[in-house]
Amino acid sequence: MSIDARTLATDFKESLLSNIIPFWLDHSIDKRNGGYFTSLRRDGSAYDTDKFMWLQARQVWMLSYLYEHVEQDQKWFDAAQSGILFILKNGRNANGNFYFSMDSRGVPLVEAYNIYSDCFAALAFYQFGRISSNSSYQEIATETYDKFIARLEDPKGQHEKSTGARPMRSFGLSMMTAYLSLQLKNIIPSADIDSILDKCIYDITQLHFDPNLGVLRENVALDGLFIDSYDGRLVNPGHGIEAMWFLMDIALDRNDLELFDWAADVCIKILEYSWDKEHGGIYYFKDAHGKPPQQLEHNQKLWWPHCEALIALSKIMTRSRTSDIISWYQKVHEYTFKYFPDSEYGEWFGYLDRKGKPIHHAKGGKWKGCYHVPRAMYECWRNFEVIAQKENTSIDV
Amino acid sequence: MSIDARTLATDFKESLLSNIIPFWLDHSIDKRNGGYFTSLRRDGSAYDTDKFMWLQARQVWMLSYLYEHVEQDQKWFDAAQSGILFILKNGRNANGNFYFSMDSRGVPLVEAYNIYSDCFAALAFYQFGRISSNSSYQEIATETYDKFIARLEDPKGQHEKSTGARPMRSFGLSMMTAYLSLQLKNIIPSADIDSILDKCIYDITQLHFDPNLGVLRENVALDGLFIDSYDGRLVNPGHGIEAMWFLMDIALDRNDLELFDWAADVCIKILEYSWDKEHGGIYYFKDAHGKPPQQLEHNQKLWWPHCEALIALSKIMTRSRTSDIISWYQKVHEYTFKYFPDSEYGEWFGYLDRKGKPIHHAKGGKWKGCYHVPRAMYECWRNFEVIAQKENTSIDV
Repeated sequence: MSIDARTLATDFKESLLSNIIPFWLDHSIDKRNGGYFTSLRRDGSAYDTDKFMWLQARQVWMLSYLYEHVEQDQKWFDAAQSGILFILKNGRNANGNFYFSMDSRGVPLVEAYNIYSDCFAALAFYQFGRISSNSSYQEIATETYDKFIARLEDPKGQHEKSTGARPMRSFGLSMMTAYLSLQLKNIIPSADIDSILDKCIYDITQLHFDPNLGVLRENVALDGLFIDSYDGRLVNPGHGIEAMWFLMDIALDRNDLELFDWAADVCIKILEYSWDKEHGGIYYFKDAHGKPPQQLEHNQKLWWPHCEALIALSKIMTRSRTSDIISWYQKVHEYTFKYFPDSEYGEWFGYLDRKGKPIHHAKGGKWKGCYHVPRAMYECWRNFEVIAQKENTSIDV
Repeated sequence: MSIDARTLATDFKESLLSNIIPFWLDHSIDKRNGGYFTSLRRDGSAYDTDKFMWLQARQVWMLSYLYEHVEQDQKWFDAAQSGILFILKNGRNANGNFYFSMDSRGVPLVEAYNIYSDCFAALAFYQFGRISSNSSYQEIATETYDKFIARLEDPKGQHEKSTGARPMRSFGLSMMTAYLSLQLKNIIPSADIDSILDKCIYDITQLHFDPNLGVLRENVALDGLFIDSYDGRLVNPGHGIEAMWFLMDIALDRNDLELFDWAADVCIKILEYSWDKEHGGIYYFKDAHGKPPQQLEHNQKLWWPHCEALIALSKIMTRSRTSDIISWYQKVHEYTFKYFPDSEYGEWFGYLDRKGKPIHHAKGGKWKGCYHVPRAMYECWRNFEVIAQKENTSIDV
């Protein structure tokens, strides 16, 4: 694989605009009720019509983001609007918290049992508000963000199953608070945003980072100490890699190049730790002590950690193109494009067994929608554009 | 594979008494705090010390059952007592509901968020009460059983995530109510037991059974109608097979041979439906409409459905030895004993990928303990004894 950054930029742009986004626009829009079908077969036909808030909101965000940053395509606006109106009409319970799922018509099915629905809803309302002339969307984004932050200490409320005897902090909450806050920083009081991001950076780099292993732990004691239990030993490499490029974006926003380099370094350590040396690909879960993970899917290869790795590595390459970084980019790119894309119907398979064989051929479901793949195509396109402009010459990757 | 029923009976007995039970007695007993370690490596050493109520209670039940039905071995009594005293001291919250998990010392970690902990606790207290001179154990069993039955309509309480807009009934509750009630029938008022079992039989045969597919559906509408959703399409073949031998036991207890034959017939249909024609073994999950299952482990091969199939098929063979039944027994036996037992350290691997390779080598964890394997060894031993006595001649299996 020896191609130049400009070609890579063109390839990612082409994939985003001619393959990935058309797949979702053609197949996911529910023309009757609004919102999106995400449980799509290989050919794009829907095999289930329930609507999952994470994926409804993520698709609104993605389409609105492309409308703002790529092209003011009316189709994208209309599709984003279909989703936000569905969420607006059906998404919240009496307390203003966002449900986990609804049926195709919007009847709520699963309660708001954690604050991640609110997180993605806030992203959606904020980003749609940026392309809409109606200011009420960003007002809802602000309200939802404030509720998200207020609920961080007790994110599950009555649905919390833990007795409290072994309190732990969750990496997912810190990383999503960081991402959401950076995205929404224009509507967060400037007195708050720095302290919120400072806390996220501290939590991630000081409490969840394990300097001995060089990876992020999903669950640690409140003071960051290791807890020797299934949850305490859990490593989710995709989460770690995704969080590292969130930190790189915060670092670039603050011009904190030390933080950028720290995140870049940890990203490579996570890849070294979680790459399957025998069959290639990033493991889905690992036990930090090499003990048997409880997740039966632990050695599967999922699309999204590979998306996050492409983003993280191309972002690192906008600043540093050591042979180590280039070689990791090459390895992840080759594996990803060999196994995930569906050359026949477009978009990507989501779930591969350890050897790279799809465990089914669906393009979407309860957790895979119009989000990780298009975001990765967009981010990599932009990153390779930056690299090409900087070098104005080919690099051997 | 051409062996006689007497040899099979001897093999299963030998496996139970010389391999499986010694493995758990040697490795699982927590001599300091009481109760059992179940997260055991291949060689039996513990890799995690948390204690999970389902497995604590199941091990008490198993050891007490063998003490009653096989041999009054003091080691078995002491090991069972260690578990029941641990549960008695640490297992219940202020409402008398049994926790899901505790740490090694008994500090509760995860709340009683469903009634399955109560189900297995009732089994444990009942069966230990049968081998103990202390009547209080069976009193606790009765109380716990009554609470289990009372909570059947709202088994998760405050932890229920469903909004109630799409009410469904769960197959697991019907099958476990059937099993638990038959086991405890000596301490359930005779006015109640028949109506409880009648209802279980109705729920399973009329509401959860799908006559078109010939299999049991995990979740159906309250009136048994199909609901086209991820949960509504879910088939768990191991559950279905296990429930069929529960029904056979109820049928034998009631001398209802029509019910026995119905369950035997459905068991074969489930095997035909869920057997992997390419690589052998029983799939863990299937989607009733052949759509992509949401469970990433759907095509893995787990130890327990194979244990249940051995029990069910040998139980059918005590009444009927058609070539079809014998051939299914042969197929399941060959697959099971080729892939699951660990010839080096004893006991069985629990989790195989689709092709039969263990995804890790642990002997136990959060869900696998001293239960399915020893119960299958005991049941198959007894069933083949019955077959051998009936035939007093070899059968070709």
